[in-house]
Order: sequence, then C-alpha cells, then structure tokens
Amino acid sequence: MQLQLISPLDMHLHLRQGDMLKNIAPLSSKYFAGALIMPNTTPPITTKEMVREYKKEILDATKGDNFTPYMTLFFKDYGYEFLKEIRDEILSIKLYPAGITTNSEGGVEKIDIDSLAPTLEAMSELNIPLCVHGESNGFVMDREAEFIPIYKRLAKAFPKLKIIMEHITTKEAARALQEEENLYATITLHHLYITLDDVAGGLLRPHLFCKPIAKRPEDKEALLELALNAHPKVMFGSDSAPHPRSAKEAPGCAAGVFTAPIALPLLAELFEKFDKLDNLQPFISLNATKIYNINPPQKMVTLVKEEFEVPISYNDVVPFKSGERVSWRVK
Amino acid sequence: MQLQLISPLDMHLHLRQGDMLKNIAPLSSKYFAGALIMPNTTPPITTKEMVREYKKEILDATKGDNFTPYMTLFFKDYGYEFLKEIRDEILSIKLYPAGITTNSEGGVEKIDIDSLAPTLEAMSELNIPLCVHGESNGFVMDREAEFIPIYKRLAKAFPKLKIIMEHITTKEAARALQEEENLYATITLHHLYITLDDVAGGLLRPHLFCKPIAKRPEDKEALLELALNAHPKVMFGSDSAPHPRSAKEAPGCAAGVFTAPIALPLLAELFEKFDKLDNLQPFISLNATKIYNINPPQKMVTLVKEEFEVPISYNDVVPFKSGERVSWRVK
Repeated sequence: MQLQLISPLDMHLHLRQGDMLKNIAPLSSKYFAGALIMPNTTPPITTKEMVREYKKEILDATKGDNFTPYMTLFFKDYGYEFLKEIRDEILSIKLYPAGITTNSEGGVEKIDIDSLAPTLEAMSELNIPLCVHGESNGFVMDREAEFIPIYKRLAKAFPKLKIIMEHITTKEAARALQEEENLYATITLHHLYITLDDVAGGLLRPHLFCKPIAKRPEDKEALLELALNAHPKVMFGSDSAPHPRSAKEAPGCAAGVFTAPIALPLLAELFEKFDKLDNLQPFISLNATKIYNINPPQKMVTLVKEEFEVPISYNDVVPFKSGERVSWRVK
Repeated sequence: MQLQLISPLDMHLHLRQGDMLKNIAPLSSKYFAGALIMPNTTPPITTKEMVREYKKEILDATKGDNFTPYMTLFFKDYGYEFLKEIRDEILSIKLYPAGITTNSEGGVEKIDIDSLAPTLEAMSELNIPLCVHGESNGFVMDREAEFIPIYKRLAKAFPKLKIIMEHITTKEAARALQEEENLYATITLHHLYITLDDVAGGLLRPHLFCKPIAKRPEDKEALLELALNAHPKVMFGSDSAPHPRSAKEAPGCAAGVFTAPIALPLLAELFEKFDKLDNLQPFISLNATKIYNINPPQKMVTLVKEEFEVPISYNDVVPFKSGERVSWRVK
C-alpha cells in the first residue's frame, strides 16, 4: 500500500541554532515542503537582519531539499512602517506570554488588548497572522483553558486578524475554534497520541514532557475529532522541539518532544487506524495553504506501508516513539 | 527557638533491601521512634519468616537508635489461623491494586469485596488494620478519587476493620475520611508541599515524581487543613521512597520522593508558617499511637530554629528539597 502526500507542511517547528540546527533541520526538509519556523531562539528573532540571517542558516543546512522555511518574528511592539517593510519576509508573528516555555523570557508580560492594539492593528491591516502560545500562568492542567477568554477577546477586537491557536491540547480550545471566525489552530503529532497518563501515569517519561503538557483523554478525543476530519481551520504543526538527551534526562527536564523525522509515518498510521487516510492531505498541507494563503514548493512524498523502527536517537536527540515500530515509512 | 517532639512516628515508610536499606534506614531511625515498614520488597513480604528476616535486617541497620520497625504483610488471601499466629509480629496488612506503583505487580487484580471477605473478616476479628494504596487504574489525576467508592464499600462492609487510606492526595479522600467512622489516613510531607505544578509546571522534576502523583492546588489545601489541625484520624506517613539517582534521571523515571531525613525540619517549618506548631506533636505521633494502639519507644527529638542546607544527595539518593535551605534543623 502506498500513500502520496503533496507538499506536506509543518506549520509549527523549532529548528534551534548552530550545531543543533545543522543536525535536525535536514530531518524536516527531507520530508516537508515547508515549515513555519518559530522565533524563540537566543536571542529571539525581532529584526529584519535576524530574519534574514536565520533564514540563511536554515537554507544552508537544508540545501538541495526543495524546502521553504516560512519565517516568523517574536512578538513585541512593532510599528506599522517596520511591519510593512518586513511583510514579505515573514509569514506570521508569534506571541509568547513571558516565561511560559523554552526561551520565552522576553515574551509579553500581560496580554492587555489596549497595549497590544497598535501592533495588532498594523498586523491586521497588513494581513500578517498572529500565532499564539496560549497559556495562562495558572495550574498546569488549566493553563490553556484559562487562556481561551483571551483568544476570544483578541478575535473579537481584531476581526480581520487571523489568530492561530498554536498546539492546542484541550476540548475547550477545540470548541473556541468553532466559535470565532478568525480563530485557527495547529495540532501536534504527540498530542494526538498521548495524554498525561503517558507522561506520568506509569513511570515518568521525560521525552514525552512538553508545553502545553498533554491533557486528559477527553481532550485528546477532541483533537482527534478535528485532525482526523481535517477540520478546515486546523493545520498540522509538529511543535517538534529537540533537546539534547542530557537536558531531558536531568533533575530539571526541558519541555519539548522531538517528532519531525517520524511525523509523516505516525500520522499515516493514525489516520489509517481511524479509516481517515483521505483526510491526511488537507490536514498536512491543503488547510495550511488556504489559511496562510501560501503556495509551497511542489514536493511529492511517498509513504509505503512497511514496518519501520524509529531510531533510538538522532545524534543526541531522542525522538518520540524512540525504538518503537511504526507500520508506515517514507519511501 | 526550640521544639521538642516526643517519639515521632513515620506511619508509611519504604526501607527497600540490601545496600539501599543499609544506606537509608539509619536516616529514619535517627529521627523517628518508629515507622510502619512497607512490604513491597522483591519479593513482597508474605510469610512469618520473611517478616522476621526483614525486621532483623532493619534492626541490624539501625542498631543503637531506639527505633521500632512496625512490620506489615503484603495483602493476599491469608487464613485466620495464619493471621492469628502472626498477629503480634505485624501491625497491619498493606493492600496494593496490582501494578499501581513500585513492586506492586503481585497486588490485588480486582478489589472485589466478596473475594476479599475471608481475609478481611479475619483481620477485622483479630484487630489487624488494613492499609490501602487506593488508586484505580484510570487517568492518573482521577485514580484516587475513583477509588473512594471502594474505600467506602470496604468501610461499610467491615465496620470494625480499621482502614487506612495511605498517602491521600485529594479533597475527595479528605472528605471520605470524615464520612466513614473506620476510615483513617496518612499524609506525606511532599503532598503538603507540592502540586502537579511543582512536578511539571516549569521544568519537569523527576525527583518530585511519585505515586499517587501530586494533584491540584485545592487538593493540597484540603490536606493542609487536615494535617495542620492534626485531625485525629490523620497521621504522618512520609511514603519516603528512595531510588538511586540513575533510576530517577532516566527515560523512565521511577516513582518515589525521598523525604525521611528532612521530614521533621520541613514539617516544623510548615506548621510554624501557619502558626500551628502546637499541632505537630499529635500529627507526628499521638494520633498514630491512638489509631494503631501502639506504645512506641520513648525518644525525644529536639528541633532548633537554625538554618540548615539539605544535602544534594544521601549517597546516591537525591532528597526532597535537595540543596535548599530549611529554617529548622534537628539538634
């Protein structure tokens, strides 16, 4: 059995910098036609020069792979003129509440619509979508649900701004998506596979620890419902976030699950299991091209139904399903 | 400032075996007059010979410390005659649902009152309390709450059996305690200090990972309410459960928090913070002597209000609050 995917896109990807980037960027560019590159580097991407340099670093590492890195800016107050000038070099701006995840210390301290308005109005006018890591600073299992009213206020205050709820993990976010016209969402691979039970129900699994943390079974069900039916407001975004093994198997384990190189086989396995293989193409590419109005490079990726054993690690990065068998592989 | 504690008791303690026991048992016997020793060794303690051998191993390791190890049996079907004969050598029998925590594979597959009745009736008649690790096999955050109906059914079916809900972590368990006359509970140190936010809200902290997992802020509040007021049906039980560092900082991290050597200073700090120092004596000893009807060795432990830095590790075991400062120490 074979499955042809046209121009798969990963609309939420962490490529890091330096040696880590050189190690892992080719594991995305090999399988995807393009990816939305998160700007929470050290320091975060906030200027045109940084966008250009970072893009060049990625293109150098992925040379020959027919891969488009869609660049983003780290949200802060930006003026209309600056945004107008940078418009063609970025695809969106990513907002992090301060301190909510890896390298987000410089994020927004308080999501206050009035103070964010000048930048958000400029983005709205210039058709620059806003990507949001939507978590409050409350109890870890409640953070996303507590952020929903902020998503809704933003959506109502800026009705022409496309707002993407990144890596949604809850039934509350799934519902909000349907209640506001200008809310969209990405869903990761791992949140379609795991709940908190997989992270902490048996032994504790640091390689499954991420932000937002995996939630309850009914939350996973709500995400599956959206993804498997390729809801038109939902796109695949892996949030693949590599850390060296030493940063994961540690007294303080960094948040992030590394899925990029095995995302397509595992999505095929999942969609096949639920008899929804036909919906993988819109989920993995078509929905994103419509939401972002992009035209990614033509790239055919063929999956075959043949067993494949996930490597224990990619250099020093342990992937999701490390050492396990998957029933599909990329040809 | 000084605080005298008379015969502190730890009514839920894991001492392990072999070298680990030799390493950590003296860290309990130094500070406590006695402890209820959990039977989930490998293999679990199920015969009179095993009780005697295990007790001897503990006494050898804690020689000279005026410390009583109160022994327990691992629950399985036991006959009346056997229990009658072993009655004076054990203080209680500990029931584990199969597979729910470390070394519980041989536990009870299904908590079915009819099939447990012969053993529980014998225990009831012989006045042997039943200690229970009360968790279902459901979603990790729901397991204790889902077990409450079983606690209640057991309590009603065996009204003269003292049932101790071990290491309670939820407001539901706190409520159940007050609803059935023959339900009692132990509370750990770490569940009075942490919620899931401390385990997984920032970086993931394997040394704070335990079963039952730390719950929500309102659950911690309910436990504090019981402990700080020294509710007469509640006793201190540390559930101190050492693992070597390599078993904690690993791709599959074992469950257990090691608190025994710093439990008294941290309890003093906590009770002082809430202006409840007077209630520490009943919580740490008096309640247990009444519930279990025991007369522990006389042992005065003096705490002084002087800053103390928790060791990074005790040999290879990383304790709770490793490297942090505590405002009390044992004199």
